Amino acid sequence: MLTPGDLKLDETPVPELKDGQALTRVKYLSIDPTMRVWMAGDSYLPAVGIGDVMRAFGFAEVVDSRHPDYKKGDRVTGLTGLQDYAVLDASASKSFQKVPKIPFVSDTVFLGLLGINGLTAFFGMEIAAPKKGETLVVSAAAGATGSIVGQIGKIRGCRVVGISGTDDKCNWLTKELGFDAAINYKHPDWKEKLAAAVPNGIDIDFENVGGEIMNRVLELMNLHGRVTLCGLISGYTKEDPSLASFATVLVKRLRVEGFIILDYVSRFMEAATQLGQWKMFGKIKDRETIVEGLEKAPDAINMLFTGANTGKLIVKV
Amino acid sequence: MLTPGDLKLDETPVPELKDGQALTRVKYLSIDPTMRVWMAGDSYLPAVGIGDVMRAFGFAEVVDSRHPDYKKGDRVTGLTGLQDYAVLDASASKSFQKVPKIPFVSDTVFLGLLGINGLTAFFGMEIAAPKKGETLVVSAAAGATGSIVGQIGKIRGCRVVGISGTDDKCNWLTKELGFDAAINYKHPDWKEKLAAAVPNGIDIDFENVGGEIMNRVLELMNLHGRVTLCGLISGYTKEDPSLASFATVLVKRLRVEGFIILDYVSRFMEAATQLGQWKMFGKIKDRETIVEGLEKAPDAINMLFTGANTGKLIVKV
Repeated sequence: MLTPGDLKLDETPVPELKDGQALTRVKYLSIDPTMRVWMAGDSYLPAVGIGDVMRAFGFAEVVDSRHPDYKKGDRVTGLTGLQDYAVLDASASKSFQKVPKIPFVSDTVFLGLLGINGLTAFFGMEIAAPKKGETLVVSAAAGATGSIVGQIGKIRGCRVVGISGTDDKCNWLTKELGFDAAINYKHPDWKEKLAAAVPNGIDIDFENVGGEIMNRVLELMNLHGRVTLCGLISGYTKEDPSLASFATVLVKRLRVEGFIILDYVSRFMEAATQLGQWKMFGKIKDRETIVEGLEKAPDAINMLFTGANTGKLIVKV
Repeated sequence: MLTPGDLKLDETPVPELKDGQALTRVKYLSIDPTMRVWMAGDSYLPAVGIGDVMRAFGFAEVVDSRHPDYKKGDRVTGLTGLQDYAVLDASASKSFQKVPKIPFVSDTVFLGLLGINGLTAFFGMEIAAPKKGETLVVSAAAGATGSIVGQIGKIRGCRVVGISGTDDKCNWLTKELGFDAAINYKHPDWKEKLAAAVPNGIDIDFENVGGEIMNRVLELMNLHGRVTLCGLISGYTKEDPSLASFATVLVKRLRVEGFIILDYVSRFMEAATQLGQWKMFGKIKDRETIVEGLEKAPDAINMLFTGANTGKLIVKV
């Protein structure tokens, strides 16, 4: 959990544009568990330095431009950081993508279903390679990524079981998203309930959590099962990294694959096109939790770790 | 570690043969880390029950037969158990294989290089799929499996670094087996030495040990590296199973695959033929540590965990 002072709201003048730069007004910010990883130290990206703007994905509109590729009114997503205005220059533009205005589609969809979470679910499920009739378990199932993972699992013909932290979320997964079962891991007998929900064992673990939840899922896996390792949120806020038992990986001959969505940048359009079609035809539903005000960003980050959000968590600037 | 009383030497009459059975005289027993797994509880095989004969691979000769497929003088390997005589019947014969008499080749080779260890190294390296110029690190490198793994790595054109527990073993690996480097993990600065020995990072971890050694190897792995998970000997004798950090697997996008040699039974002959050729042409060397006397089997098992053996550990009955 963040404590007051970890992030500080600071006011600085909006920068003067140089040639090759564009100024964007940030409208929405994506709040993701991985932000906690970026604060903890160097990992797949360098750590955010003390005093630097906190890294974040955002949706923004160009308000002024001296950049040949961007004009006023263009809409972009990218690493805006937690701020009101972000400058887009040659180096930043690699992380930014222009996004279209689509009738009847909210701008925030480019941060969730058609953004990092949808893309993560899409490519993670490509690695998992589900076959019809297999059993898929996804943890943090009511989160922005997990909820899409489970729905892709249903599209692929799997039995899908979600693990989540409230009965309300579990109801949403089974009644609205079509999951076959959902287990509230805060119930004392959740381990038995999970076993009962997977009568044919587990073929695929789409792992977002780690720790005790992951270990229980591994125990229930079938021989030669696959673990797609997407996140370890249980470990991000503790001293102890997410330790889990490689003994089960060995005895059950599992294949565990870690992946990071940044490796798939060149295929984002392909994935977004497919996800957009699924949404249009009602095969994938998404939900958002929106927090108003940049100054609420630290509280919003903490909501991820207390499980207070359902679906995509967004700060409206 | 085993304590006195965990295994008891018991005398019972040599059984009378029924139709369909053969009686074998056990000559050599293979002492393997996985025996400790078999004692701990059900895993990839059922646990050995209290009062049952301890499970073990052995080399034996048929001394009497009422089984149509076996005649006196036939030589077999299989799950003989830690005993002087083993009965071979219809159910046991699935685990037994007849082995030929090869001039100038010791019988014990069928327990090591042409037995479980060679086969484990062979199929594990098939999963690891080394490419020329890649860096391979193998732990428990002077053991029966690790020493063959490293030599296959050299045949495949890899830079090969072994991790072992004495300077003598390290010298054997580099001076006799052709490893590019060997690190004694009991030296206080072994972690830095390992880093220095892999200037291009690690592409493949052939993991036999787990725990702290595995975590250090994972830290030094390249993005998209592969971990072939063969054993976790550091965890077998402690309460704590071998916990290691899945965070590194995620951040480095590693692929971890557990495997058990029993899944490859149908391809044993193919592997043994290749291993035999390599041995004949001097491309693979093997070494044995032989302990005399069935009653010494518990001490021999403990030698695996204190690192007292080099190469294949065998009890001569």
